[in-house]
Amino acid sequence: MDQTRLARAALSRLFEPLDAMGTLLVEALGPQDALRIACGRATAEEMTSLARVLGEAAGTRGGSTGERTGNAVGTMSAALERWRPRVEHLAPERDVESIARFGGRLVIPEDPEWPEGLVDLGAEAPLCLWVRGEEPLPHYERTVAIVGSRDATGYGLSVAGELARGLADQGLTVISGGAYGIDGQAHRAALTSSGPAVPTVAVLAGGADRYYPSGNEDLLREIAKRGHLVSELPPGASPSKHRFLKRNRLIAAMSALTIVVEARWRSGALSTARRAVDLGRHVAAVPGSVYSANSAGCHRLLRDGATCVTEAKEAYELIRQAGEGLVEDRTVPVKPHDGLSLVDLMVLDALPVRRGAEIGHLAVVAGLSEAETRAGLGRLSLSGLAERVEGGWRRTQDA
Amino acid sequence: MDQTRLARAALSRLFEPLDAMGTLLVEALGPQDALRIACGRATAEEMTSLARVLGEAAGTRGGSTGERTGNAVGTMSAALERWRPRVEHLAPERDVESIARFGGRLVIPEDPEWPEGLVDLGAEAPLCLWVRGEEPLPHYERTVAIVGSRDATGYGLSVAGELARGLADQGLTVISGGAYGIDGQAHRAALTSSGPAVPTVAVLAGGADRYYPSGNEDLLREIAKRGHLVSELPPGASPSKHRFLKRNRLIAAMSALTIVVEARWRSGALSTARRAVDLGRHVAAVPGSVYSANSAGCHRLLRDGATCVTEAKEAYELIRQAGEGLVEDRTVPVKPHDGLSLVDLMVLDALPVRRGAEIGHLAVVAGLSEAETRAGLGRLSLSGLAERVEGGWRRTQDA
Repeated sequence: MDQTRLARAALSRLFEPLDAMGTLLVEALGPQDALRIACGRATAEEMTSLARVLGEAAGTRGGSTGERTGNAVGTMSAALERWRPRVEHLAPERDVESIARFGGRLVIPEDPEWPEGLVDLGAEAPLCLWVRGEEPLPHYERTVAIVGSRDATGYGLSVAGELARGLADQGLTVISGGAYGIDGQAHRAALTSSGPAVPTVAVLAGGADRYYPSGNEDLLREIAKRGHLVSELPPGASPSKHRFLKRNRLIAAMSALTIVVEARWRSGALSTARRAVDLGRHVAAVPGSVYSANSAGCHRLLRDGATCVTEAKEAYELIRQAGEGLVEDRTVPVKPHDGLSLVDLMVLDALPVRRGAEIGHLAVVAGLSEAETRAGLGRLSLSGLAERVEGGWRRTQDA
Repeated sequence: MDQTRLARAALSRLFEPLDAMGTLLVEALGPQDALRIACGRATAEEMTSLARVLGEAAGTRGGSTGERTGNAVGTMSAALERWRPRVEHLAPERDVESIARFGGRLVIPEDPEWPEGLVDLGAEAPLCLWVRGEEPLPHYERTVAIVGSRDATGYGLSVAGELARGLADQGLTVISGGAYGIDGQAHRAALTSSGPAVPTVAVLAGGADRYYPSGNEDLLREIAKRGHLVSELPPGASPSKHRFLKRNRLIAAMSALTIVVEARWRSGALSTARRAVDLGRHVAAVPGSVYSANSAGCHRLLRDGATCVTEAKEAYELIRQAGEGLVEDRTVPVKPHDGLSLVDLMVLDALPVRRGAEIGHLAVVAGLSEAETRAGLGRLSLSGLAERVEGGWRRTQDA
């Protein structure tokens, strides 16, 4: 096991997700030195030089070099304080063995398998991913996130299922958060697909060995077998509220398109959608009744520029190249007068239903010359829409 | 009665709406000469000079001057042929008297009352409007069109009613087409408002003296009393299919915003919306179930860039100046942990529900220093979210 990998494993336990100072350390020094320093094993010389480097990194806020270095020392000390209680609990080899027992592995940015979409997160990219599932992680251009309320309605569950199944059938991977409601339904429906891709990925807010929520344990076990369970937190980590909020950025970054199926006016799904917008990803929302509180968040997204999506084909269209797999116009029954020229339509409109009318009268009603009216009657009679009767012309009965 | 007014009255019976040659004549010669020539009373000299003028007007299509003049003579002859059958039926004085008997009047572009919005139609503006109702026609910046399916669902009718009533209460005029379903519901609901403006205007595809559809006769009579019935066609004209399609441009042009409440994948309401887009007007659509065929057209509009509207306030916001009458964030019940700092949230997440935990342990779980954890516990206990018990700290019960 190489040292970079072990260092990242340890750092993912030492730092909470999005620890700004931690990220800065890893960027400046690489994972191994960052780990040593975060564990309080820096030399005095290193601390001095580090304070200067961090001070420069924070340089845009103004102040003298000395002030900035002083501030950096303060922030650094606070961070060391914050990390200290966890240092003695670090055991990266054990964590890596633990995920392996669950059929998993640690994926780090240095690996070719590292999801390209996460690079777009910049300094907010995770330190590593703890991954269960055998296949390589899918490329984000072949994935769709389907997210939404935990307390979904039957309507939302139905749409989520149809979208997920339809997209998985197209060979896309469905990403979601493993929660009750829309998330679980999306995973479940993707698993019913026999499409060629990894059907579904659950990005979790706790360790990939923990089945949370517990009611979804069977589902999550199935995803681990046939798809992926993914977390930036090490085995055993509990899924706390702030970790859910931070987790949402991973769902957004790992997906080409985020679809919100149902969401209340304030909802975690909206935060995922906002992150997707920030990352330049496609964002779509499913419309619903204006009287459903569970659709209010979706309608809010639609007003803010999300694309309206009502079926898998429309979602698929959003992430495929122009011209490929375009949604065709729905077929609707053609009415007999569809495709009539305007003149013929004007003649048809002028025709009485019962008693026949003479051409001179029809021309007045239609606002056409007698010649035009006569020609139009000829065409309409050929199409079976007009018929000659006593007294002139009328519409064909039952046409 | 001035001659311009009478000429326009006659032309509105002679020409069908959007008669291109008729429009060209009126633009080139004014209503009175246009009428004389359309009735076939041009001198030979006039016809020659007219052919040259019309040939120049069509000049962009290329060809020699002689060819263009020849083409123009041909088109002109066809138009005269088309108009001839109606010439003997012209009786503009009688038409003006007729609308007056219905409490109405003829409004022409030369009148100060002429709706400014119609000017945006350019060559497609109507020749005149036959108007019933006493008040001046509303300015288009104070009007909203609410349109949709005739075979509306209960859902669509309900939303249409709430939108129309809410907008009329705000002092806006609701414009629609007088049809069954969404149109009728919008008119009806606007009439229940006690707002300060003309509540509603029905733009008809037949004469303003004809109650079509007949089941809406009572409604249309009420609109004539308290709002306006408007048509570009003279009294007695029948509402034929092509006139409906052409009528839609008037609804779009006379309104600052067109809202489609329910529409099938192909629907006349969509043509109104497209015209509104072409005119640079606001277009909005009401979302609905993805399983409702009556919402498919609305969702199509949303995909094409229409604004998602779920209540009157949102529609009102679209047409009011920025900053005035903005929609406020909906109030939702505030949860106890709303507004907590991230540190406090991390401490709260770490707190056990039953047995107390010591600060050292909480710090490890939360990923914070002991000092930060202690400070967070202090703040949480002040907010009643954490409590000290035997063995340390836990969440306050029922918090």
